[in-house]
Amino acid sequence: MSRYAPVPFPDVKLEGKFWHERLETVLTRTIPSQHKKLEEYTILDSLKLPQPPPPLRFPRHANGFTVQVFWDSDVGKWIEAASYALAHRRDADIESKIEAIVDDFERAQAPDGYLNCWYLGREPEKRWTNLRDNHEMYNAGHLLEGAIAYYRVTGRRRWLDIMERYLEHIYSVFGTEPGKKRGYDGHEEIELALIKLYYLTGEKKHLDFATYLINERGQQPPHYFDIEREAREGGDRNQPYTQGNYEYSQSHKPVREQDKVVGHAVRAMYLYTAMADLAAELNDPDLKRACEVLWDDVMETKMYVTAGLGPSERNEGFTHDFDLPNQTAYAETCASVALIFWAQRMLHLDLDGKYGDILELAMFNGALSGLSRDGEHYFYANPLESDGRPTRWEWHTCPCCTMNVSRLVASVGGYFLSTAEDGIAFHLYGGISTEVEVAGTKVGLREVSTYPWDGDIKIHLDPATPTAFDLKLRIPGWSSGAKVSVNGETVDVAQAVNGYLTINRTWNKGDVVSLELPMPPVRLYAHPGVIMDAGRVALKRGPLVYCMEEIDNPGGRVQRFKLPRQAELRAETRPDLFDGVVTLKAEALAINEADWTSLYRTNPPQEEPAVLTALPYYLWANRGQGSMVVWVPEAH
Amino acid sequence: MSRYAPVPFPDVKLEGKFWHERLETVLTRTIPSQHKKLEEYTILDSLKLPQPPPPLRFPRHANGFTVQVFWDSDVGKWIEAASYALAHRRDADIESKIEAIVDDFERAQAPDGYLNCWYLGREPEKRWTNLRDNHEMYNAGHLLEGAIAYYRVTGRRRWLDIMERYLEHIYSVFGTEPGKKRGYDGHEEIELALIKLYYLTGEKKHLDFATYLINERGQQPPHYFDIEREAREGGDRNQPYTQGNYEYSQSHKPVREQDKVVGHAVRAMYLYTAMADLAAELNDPDLKRACEVLWDDVMETKMYVTAGLGPSERNEGFTHDFDLPNQTAYAETCASVALIFWAQRMLHLDLDGKYGDILELAMFNGALSGLSRDGEHYFYANPLESDGRPTRWEWHTCPCCTMNVSRLVASVGGYFLSTAEDGIAFHLYGGISTEVEVAGTKVGLREVSTYPWDGDIKIHLDPATPTAFDLKLRIPGWSSGAKVSVNGETVDVAQAVNGYLTINRTWNKGDVVSLELPMPPVRLYAHPGVIMDAGRVALKRGPLVYCMEEIDNPGGRVQRFKLPRQAELRAETRPDLFDGVVTLKAEALAINEADWTSLYRTNPPQEEPAVLTALPYYLWANRGQGSMVVWVPEAH
Repeated sequence: MSRYAPVPFPDVKLEGKFWHERLETVLTRTIPSQHKKLEEYTILDSLKLPQPPPPLRFPRHANGFTVQVFWDSDVGKWIEAASYALAHRRDADIESKIEAIVDDFERAQAPDGYLNCWYLGREPEKRWTNLRDNHEMYNAGHLLEGAIAYYRVTGRRRWLDIMERYLEHIYSVFGTEPGKKRGYDGHEEIELALIKLYYLTGEKKHLDFATYLINERGQQPPHYFDIEREAREGGDRNQPYTQGNYEYSQSHKPVREQDKVVGHAVRAMYLYTAMADLAAELNDPDLKRACEVLWDDVMETKMYVTAGLGPSERNEGFTHDFDLPNQTAYAETCASVALIFWAQRMLHLDLDGKYGDILELAMFNGALSGLSRDGEHYFYANPLESDGRPTRWEWHTCPCCTMNVSRLVASVGGYFLSTAEDGIAFHLYGGISTEVEVAGTKVGLREVSTYPWDGDIKIHLDPATPTAFDLKLRIPGWSSGAKVSVNGETVDVAQAVNGYLTINRTWNKGDVVSLELPMPPVRLYAHPGVIMDAGRVALKRGPLVYCMEEIDNPGGRVQRFKLPRQAELRAETRPDLFDGVVTLKAEALAINEADWTSLYRTNPPQEEPAVLTALPYYLWANRGQGSMVVWVPEAH
Repeated sequence: MSRYAPVPFPDVKLEGKFWHERLETVLTRTIPSQHKKLEEYTILDSLKLPQPPPPLRFPRHANGFTVQVFWDSDVGKWIEAASYALAHRRDADIESKIEAIVDDFERAQAPDGYLNCWYLGREPEKRWTNLRDNHEMYNAGHLLEGAIAYYRVTGRRRWLDIMERYLEHIYSVFGTEPGKKRGYDGHEEIELALIKLYYLTGEKKHLDFATYLINERGQQPPHYFDIEREAREGGDRNQPYTQGNYEYSQSHKPVREQDKVVGHAVRAMYLYTAMADLAAELNDPDLKRACEVLWDDVMETKMYVTAGLGPSERNEGFTHDFDLPNQTAYAETCASVALIFWAQRMLHLDLDGKYGDILELAMFNGALSGLSRDGEHYFYANPLESDGRPTRWEWHTCPCCTMNVSRLVASVGGYFLSTAEDGIAFHLYGGISTEVEVAGTKVGLREVSTYPWDGDIKIHLDPATPTAFDLKLRIPGWSSGAKVSVNGETVDVAQAVNGYLTINRTWNKGDVVSLELPMPPVRLYAHPGVIMDAGRVALKRGPLVYCMEEIDNPGGRVQRFKLPRQAELRAETRPDLFDGVVTLKAEALAINEADWTSLYRTNPPQEEPAVLTALPYYLWANRGQGSMVVWVPEAH
């Protein structure tokens, strides 16, 4: 089988209602407002060097937020998101804002190429002394991703040139050659960015340095973080999650030997993304095997039903198997976004629907829940249950998630389909059009659907000349009874292999493939190891996980409901809600809260018949405060 | 009604099996082993002044524990517990150990009376500069309680003299008089200790200083903690839970205006204990009313079913209404012990069974769970659910709970009954004998029962001469269908007022009162506000809350069980378990874990009939690691 590669997002036009709305919101609301926030919270000021050194390490601004070592990365991520936006439509205002930022970075860059505004502005003599905690390469990675995106869209090289000078500096400091430091960053990110640069330029040195970073990670003794810690004077600040805790940064052992997903969730996902990239580029079976083992570990024991990752605020990451508390779930938006990156890489290592399923699950649930309907409010943590207290915030002292979700949505078209020399593979559905080249022929493609609200999908093919190639359709793992036909002629879906149905034929102009994915609402049950979900049930329809919100179920906390196991789940189209969504309804039981006068009682709660309404999880907390639950207590 | 006062524990002999076992364990195992731990963890060394100043503020010992500012208090609490033990039987070895500690304190005491080994040993110039965080008066309070207990049992004054000198110093520094600091401690404790000293000596200055501390607390502006913070040089260490957070230490407003239970749970309970004491001593209706409002707040919205208090590790305390997570419950042992203190004070303000019920609930559940069966292992946090990871520890960097539970058990007889001029009131049952004086007559009393395992209680009265007085029996709030008779003649239990049945008659030698408290196992349900307990049920029999442990329910995590609402609960006497306990059994349903191959699935779990076994909660985690649950998912 020839190798599949994603069709880049600028080539994919989002025509379906679902993604069109999200994209327009991000383009018109999110990206402009994020620039305002970068200004308002002095993040852009921090690039204007030289600066007077502040008295404290993390000075607190009047707005209550502190200056952070990772602000460069937030700027880089905004440039990346804004550049993706420019790919949809150019915008002189956005471009001038990016150019102004590039001006600042250009002025800030040291003569030797070094470029980190925290260190240059505050403690230039301490650069490269604490890779473990201080995110220098992480920042560089995000700046590089921004530079690549900006160059790809505008063709302007200035920002990319700056970053390439910075990389030359980094390559002169780190590596296995004598005299160089054998360091790597505590927060992985630059690895996957370097591979992107390699894809852009074809220059092998970038791939080589990414390989060096992946290979060096976790080698010991001595451990690099110990070497640099010993070299630092005066002891460290209190860093309980990095000091001696290598699992936190996935550097507890060489990556090829890692078999359990550990530590900070976002770091882990960025690492695994780069590992999967390299496994493909280097054709490295050990690296691929490590990716597969780690994938299985997270899927079998550590992922929320929403594709949220990392239950614990304490380490922003993973704990032990089946530890998936709902109300206190951390499940950082960034981690689900990064899971999408990883899943996409795995999918292109092996065209297996199990990766596509998770890519889709994370997209529609754990990642998208991080962005409000209005495009200007966010969740950093994505709990699966609420007593009504959490609300979306408009900014965060660590604003990583905001730009992660905007760059994802602004480039979402890039996840829909892939091509190989002899085939086209559809991973996602939802209404797109594009033109690709397959088997030497230009093929126009138009996928028409109202997915995820409905599973009736039509794919119109328009090859320049009749051409034989594979059309591969992902048959989602959640679906049952899918039907496929070509020009009205049935294709046996049972022939699908690893979640993809391959249709090989000579395609002609006007061919129409019909894919019907029945979307009955279903119940999900969690492994008994997830003790938090004991006696509870989650609802799902198609790729969407549902939740109950108080506003749709007035009369008290939504946890007062019990859903009988036999109750029919009814999908209901609601044109009035968020411009049209499908809710779920069921005849359930509900406790009357007014009946309670004490904290505990022996008298059983009186459950009365009540209709339960559930809404897609990603839409929660857009209509004021109120309780919410994904895992509903079950009666049976 | 004349005022009731507790019969002191040395006058109450514990004859019933339940408390006899706990007491013997504490006397023979816990108190001696705690002294060993105080040695082993260098706590006793810290009293041996002068000491070389350590390089860091909280140096870490080889054993991994840090030196703490509150170590004096732990020594004080051990002396108190050990003195209570001496009241049961004198022990030359224990006495010499206490004397050796007194020697150290005597040598350490400053010429002006100041006595705090942390400050004297490390930073004597900084004494009384940070009452907010550094526990100076808290330490003094516990040392004072130790001195009072030791004096009461042995008649030896040396230790009490030292403490009285220290108090004179404190009184010279703090107060409302010109030139004095208007301070009070961030961690309440000394207030209740001073009232004990007033009871011992009758010297009003001690009551007055306790009153001063209570009255001054929370007065602002300016807030005392701000005044002292501004006076400190060089800024504070990072203290997120005390810096500007007055609720943490219940100093956010004057105590008489407080109406919500907030902050650190143990601090709150010690404060309320002293407030209730003072409300009685000063006959202060505002203080009494504040106690009642705070009592209702905690009872209606903030107490675990086990009488655990304070859900959050973050502030070791209270959060918001109905926030009672089970697996992560902090529910510090000390807080339940201190709730017993508070309940006892409330009970003696108003002889109301609602206070007795909570005193009993905390005793048998949230407090007693902190001590292992072997008497040498502890819980600091007392979760109500476990995935099998938590285990009891043999010591803690903050060992407050260890001596709190030993001093409680060593003095538990003091909670059983009270006397007034004209009456005797029984609060607890479990097999005791004593002699009291009522209406000018000595009355021998013997309460015979196997409570809490059985509710058949006989009280034998033996007045020196036939005498008329009230015999008040607490009819527990959890009971239903209680029967009482005197010499076989029925007394109408419906006459009970506020949970106490008063029998007024002329009592004669050989009179026998019979109290039958039926103890059918019952189900408890939590208010729907406690979203963590939605769809779950707890089991209770008499005063004992039950839990399921994996060892009694082998085959997987206990959360796999569902208890049908209609299933009969059967009490079963198990002479083989812990020298005889009553377990509960029910025909339930259980999921087969082996049936699961994925984290989530649409196929409903197959529940099969299985017998569920529950054990009293206080006994959990005494037989190795395993899952545990108090709130069992319910089927119906």
